[in-house]
Amino acid sequence: MHSFGQLVQSFEERFLNTLPFPQSPDNLYEPCRYLLKLGGKRVRPVLCLMSNELFGDIIEDAWHAAAAVELFHNFTLIHDDIMDKAPLRRGQPTIHAKYGLTAGILCGDIMNIYSYEQLGYITRSLPQILQLFNKTAIEVCEGQQMDMDFETRDDVHIDEYIQMITLKTSVLLACSLKIGGLLGGSTEGNANKLYAFGKNLGIAFQLQDDYLDAYGAVDKLGKQNGGDIKANKKTYLLLNALENANNAQRKQINECMACEDESKVSSMLQLFNEIGADVACREAVNKYSQMAFDALEDVAVTSKRKEGLHQLASYLLQREH
Amino acid sequence: MHSFGQLVQSFEERFLNTLPFPQSPDNLYEPCRYLLKLGGKRVRPVLCLMSNELFGDIIEDAWHAAAAVELFHNFTLIHDDIMDKAPLRRGQPTIHAKYGLTAGILCGDIMNIYSYEQLGYITRSLPQILQLFNKTAIEVCEGQQMDMDFETRDDVHIDEYIQMITLKTSVLLACSLKIGGLLGGSTEGNANKLYAFGKNLGIAFQLQDDYLDAYGAVDKLGKQNGGDIKANKKTYLLLNALENANNAQRKQINECMACEDESKVSSMLQLFNEIGADVACREAVNKYSQMAFDALEDVAVTSKRKEGLHQLASYLLQREH
Repeated sequence: MHSFGQLVQSFEERFLNTLPFPQSPDNLYEPCRYLLKLGGKRVRPVLCLMSNELFGDIIEDAWHAAAAVELFHNFTLIHDDIMDKAPLRRGQPTIHAKYGLTAGILCGDIMNIYSYEQLGYITRSLPQILQLFNKTAIEVCEGQQMDMDFETRDDVHIDEYIQMITLKTSVLLACSLKIGGLLGGSTEGNANKLYAFGKNLGIAFQLQDDYLDAYGAVDKLGKQNGGDIKANKKTYLLLNALENANNAQRKQINECMACEDESKVSSMLQLFNEIGADVACREAVNKYSQMAFDALEDVAVTSKRKEGLHQLASYLLQREH
Repeated sequence: MHSFGQLVQSFEERFLNTLPFPQSPDNLYEPCRYLLKLGGKRVRPVLCLMSNELFGDIIEDAWHAAAAVELFHNFTLIHDDIMDKAPLRRGQPTIHAKYGLTAGILCGDIMNIYSYEQLGYITRSLPQILQLFNKTAIEVCEGQQMDMDFETRDDVHIDEYIQMITLKTSVLLACSLKIGGLLGGSTEGNANKLYAFGKNLGIAFQLQDDYLDAYGAVDKLGKQNGGDIKANKKTYLLLNALENANNAQRKQINECMACEDESKVSSMLQLFNEIGADVACREAVNKYSQMAFDALEDVAVTSKRKEGLHQLASYLLQREH
């Protein structure tokens, strides 16, 4: 059994050294290499590999599937960054910022296609895996559309928000795990438990991200706290606060959203605290975390084999385990 | 055996009536439906279906493959139109013009993925077909990148131009035909002949398109002649003229490209005629057309079965047959 760190290293060695991109046209592939070499946590490929290793040695197919999910994830980042007009990714200029809109669109497209190219090498359960990947890919785009739609809506319900983050973030984690399991010869039942583990882990992670953006320490990349509040982003905290506010508090929230001065973040945090959105968010993180760990418990392999996934989930959720 | 018209009708009935798109999120799927219902000649799906019918009745897999190539083609149109800043497609507003950049990017993405979703239903030769489709999809994006690169280059060689149009346009026609054949149980040899037929047909068609843009009658959508000349587009005509011009003529071409007045098109056409680019372009159309028809001849099924493909190619190339 391999640790998270070992698998990240092996994946990067195999993946970055054997990147399927040819040299030409350079304007197409150079930005792709640039982004992939910027790093990222490689969580999705490692989940796929760990899940495969639950059932035996990691097989060649699983490396291809791991590359597929990493390529797909990076494709979505490139296009999301265009839609979000984001200047930075992993602390460096985004592709469209560095190379222009055309490069951003086309590099995203080709990376999406290269994810399927990797799937094309899979020799086991290809129809089932292709169908799962397609379903997931569709859901991720639907999640992104919901996220875009939320920006201009003022009636977003918290259940819709959970659905949006499930589609945009969680199903790809779930899919990575399920494919790894299926390629390992897992039963459908175990594969579905792995899917549930990934799905709930993803939701918990995203809700925690919402929480930490408001309440966490400044992170290593210097990302400022309160960015979501400043941008009036409809996070779990804001939606929960709006849902549970009394009339006076709702008025204050709306005033706070309309204001641009320095006190905006602290005023909003105070409202969140008054209304109890902070506690609700932490409880939601715990609820989905627990569902994730319960699903992992239910995967019928020895606990020892599951240690890597358990540790990775704990690391992502910053939980002691 | 079915005619082009019959297959277009059947495809549209099956395809548009059973569009795989759900209702929600509406902002994602409505623009997709809008574009697909605008029509287009449906050449790629019909090539796939006709090619399948060379070897027997059209099978269910072939309808899925036909939908896949049509979806993929429409995906590329959506994103190309963004990169080209094109306001119109099929005489109507492009998706990004009508719905905005985000819709353009995301609808293209989802249509790309839905093309793979259709492939996911294929029950015969899936690995081979997926790999061929992936290779083709990569080539189409590479062709688009080359096309973009050519805009700012002044040293494009005519061989590179042929390579660009081969990748951007022809390989998808070729792929459509080959997949149809493979799904019909064609031998590898026949499938490759079908591929060669489509590839050369596509090149001939694109070169003819260059020719007609300069020399053809005003088309039904009111597309003006000389659009490529006005835009200084590096077509076969311009590249051939530049390659064969003497120094004085090359100077005149460059002056003509720099000018914006009304005589631009007629001056350039006169230079093309002087240098013989018009004849060279017609000869190139004939050469690739002949290679296409020769490849079709070589497909080892009765001539009668090939009549539909022969007619379709003749129609596309506006040739008497």
